[in-house]
Amino acid sequence: MSKLNFFSGPAVLPDSVMQQAADAIHNFDNTGLSILEISHRSKQFVKVMDEARALVKELMGLDANYEVLFLHGGALSQFHMVPMNLLNANETASYFDTGTWAHGALTEAKLFGNVHIACSSKDKNYTYIPREYNIATGNKYLHLTSNNTIYGTQINTPYLNQIIDTDTPIVCDMSSDIFSRQLNYNKFALIYAGAQKNAGAAGTTMVILNKDILGTAKRPIPKMLDYSRHIGADSMLNTPSVFAVYVSYLTLKWIKEQGVANLQAANQRKADKLYAAIDGSSLYKGTVEKDSRSQMNVCFLLNDETLNDKFNAYAEQHDVLGLKGHRSVGGFRASIYNAMPESGVDTLIEVMKEFERMA
Amino acid sequence: MSKLNFFSGPAVLPDSVMQQAADAIHNFDNTGLSILEISHRSKQFVKVMDEARALVKELMGLDANYEVLFLHGGALSQFHMVPMNLLNANETASYFDTGTWAHGALTEAKLFGNVHIACSSKDKNYTYIPREYNIATGNKYLHLTSNNTIYGTQINTPYLNQIIDTDTPIVCDMSSDIFSRQLNYNKFALIYAGAQKNAGAAGTTMVILNKDILGTAKRPIPKMLDYSRHIGADSMLNTPSVFAVYVSYLTLKWIKEQGVANLQAANQRKADKLYAAIDGSSLYKGTVEKDSRSQMNVCFLLNDETLNDKFNAYAEQHDVLGLKGHRSVGGFRASIYNAMPESGVDTLIEVMKEFERMA
Repeated sequence: MSKLNFFSGPAVLPDSVMQQAADAIHNFDNTGLSILEISHRSKQFVKVMDEARALVKELMGLDANYEVLFLHGGALSQFHMVPMNLLNANETASYFDTGTWAHGALTEAKLFGNVHIACSSKDKNYTYIPREYNIATGNKYLHLTSNNTIYGTQINTPYLNQIIDTDTPIVCDMSSDIFSRQLNYNKFALIYAGAQKNAGAAGTTMVILNKDILGTAKRPIPKMLDYSRHIGADSMLNTPSVFAVYVSYLTLKWIKEQGVANLQAANQRKADKLYAAIDGSSLYKGTVEKDSRSQMNVCFLLNDETLNDKFNAYAEQHDVLGLKGHRSVGGFRASIYNAMPESGVDTLIEVMKEFERMA
Repeated sequence: MSKLNFFSGPAVLPDSVMQQAADAIHNFDNTGLSILEISHRSKQFVKVMDEARALVKELMGLDANYEVLFLHGGALSQFHMVPMNLLNANETASYFDTGTWAHGALTEAKLFGNVHIACSSKDKNYTYIPREYNIATGNKYLHLTSNNTIYGTQINTPYLNQIIDTDTPIVCDMSSDIFSRQLNYNKFALIYAGAQKNAGAAGTTMVILNKDILGTAKRPIPKMLDYSRHIGADSMLNTPSVFAVYVSYLTLKWIKEQGVANLQAANQRKADKLYAAIDGSSLYKGTVEKDSRSQMNVCFLLNDETLNDKFNAYAEQHDVLGLKGHRSVGGFRASIYNAMPESGVDTLIEVMKEFERMA
């Protein structure tokens, strides 16, 4: 790929992952069959699923009582699966209201039990992560969205470490920053993430959970929505999204080769230099309060918005794609996930500076 | 692919589809980006989704009030979505109990309303399609499984035409025989099918429905489980399973090129000659009553079961893969979906005959 992909997700993948994925369409693991037509019960694919699950546990340093599932449905399906499995009708869960998806998650939870808003940044169009929050009495779990893709905010690592230092079970949507930094993942009761940003292609969603949180639901749960059933079937309750799981498996192997600590350092450097370029310019300005800035999604506006279309066209002419911001924020957003090399961010900064000089 | 793939699903795909899918991993629609990293909101992918939905309507000859969705979750998720959207707690739906999946569907429906068993072939391990059935008074819908993959039974076309000639809304799981034959699809209220047998790779599920059946549900429905929300979002309520939808799109174009009528004729010839070979042999025997035999999944046993492993090994040596039967039936099963060429069935028959001569 000669183009630079700054889309928010589906997003950039390592070249080696794409090459291996394409190869497997012709001949998967020397079976003589395509990954698209292989049985999910074949020993070759069962190995992929088992190794992918083990890699997630290894990369996160998880204890033995954690389970990893690759489910259908996208992170959005976890908005109902989480409360369906964890929250009875008379119980209360607390939610951080820090963006479109965080709000979507708490809206779905209201169908199942009581929802307490622990904090909200809706007052300023979700441009910050609130520093104060409170948890309901007898709280069942606290739901966080660690990175808000649309608004470019992220719970920074020191603050997140402070929040998870609690006895309340923590449920966290990490769709847009999973595997981007080291954390004590054993402090989380349940983590979920659509694969298509930092961990593969669209079509599968990781759910990582401590088995101890299950078993209290009093409602009947349909088979496919029941975490226990998926665990009992080793994440093969029905035909999984075979190819998407395979791409995640390849991506997880790539992450292991790179090392999460190294990726974290690179993500820090990439974000620091891009925000520095924005802050040092008179054309670009960030949209997010500094200590809430995301290392994954860098949102910015042009001081002269009449130049928006021109900037976008200029970037595309220079093979810099996917910069258009979400309609809720406007302006621009550069998504710089794990697989975006530092050289890609350097090119983006050059293109931004050249455009500013010309403008 | 030089190997012959008789797996029950994920299953054989046309070579041209696999080639195009692999090409799109390198460069999708001349975007310079991979199909794995392209935004689902890009105009190129929106076109794929729109055309795939339109192709389904065209291939089925559906009226304007039908909608086509490509959803996550596999056909198994439709087991709860159908009653959640269509069946209130005090209402009754009737179900054909003709196999593992048919039984699974009615088990899930019981979580939502009353279930009436219209007929069952459980008494003879699901080896036939019952010829008599009855529908509950005030029935909300009748649920059928048109082809039972595991047991190799199918509601044959004359009988199916007779069943659907009714005012009761028909809901049908066509996962393993969609696009394999011509029917008056406007007689169905809702059809669902996992893509990975006759219409693509694993990871997406088609739901085809007449909008008139919606709007009577009295329970709150989570966003991702609500057909109306998916229709309102043009089947893009969240990030779809992009690559799987693309493979279905390519497969639908291939089906259109072939023509459903031609595929139906070929399926008939393929099944007829394979059943004739089984019936004409003294080693092989079919497991299903003749008028219930599936044209998609041909189940058979060896009269001398001590030869099972030897037969399977012999077939694999001759590049004939995937013949092992489901554990509920034992023996063997050859799945001969649309994409299995007639020459592949000829080869299978030769291999079976050679083995019989040697045995």
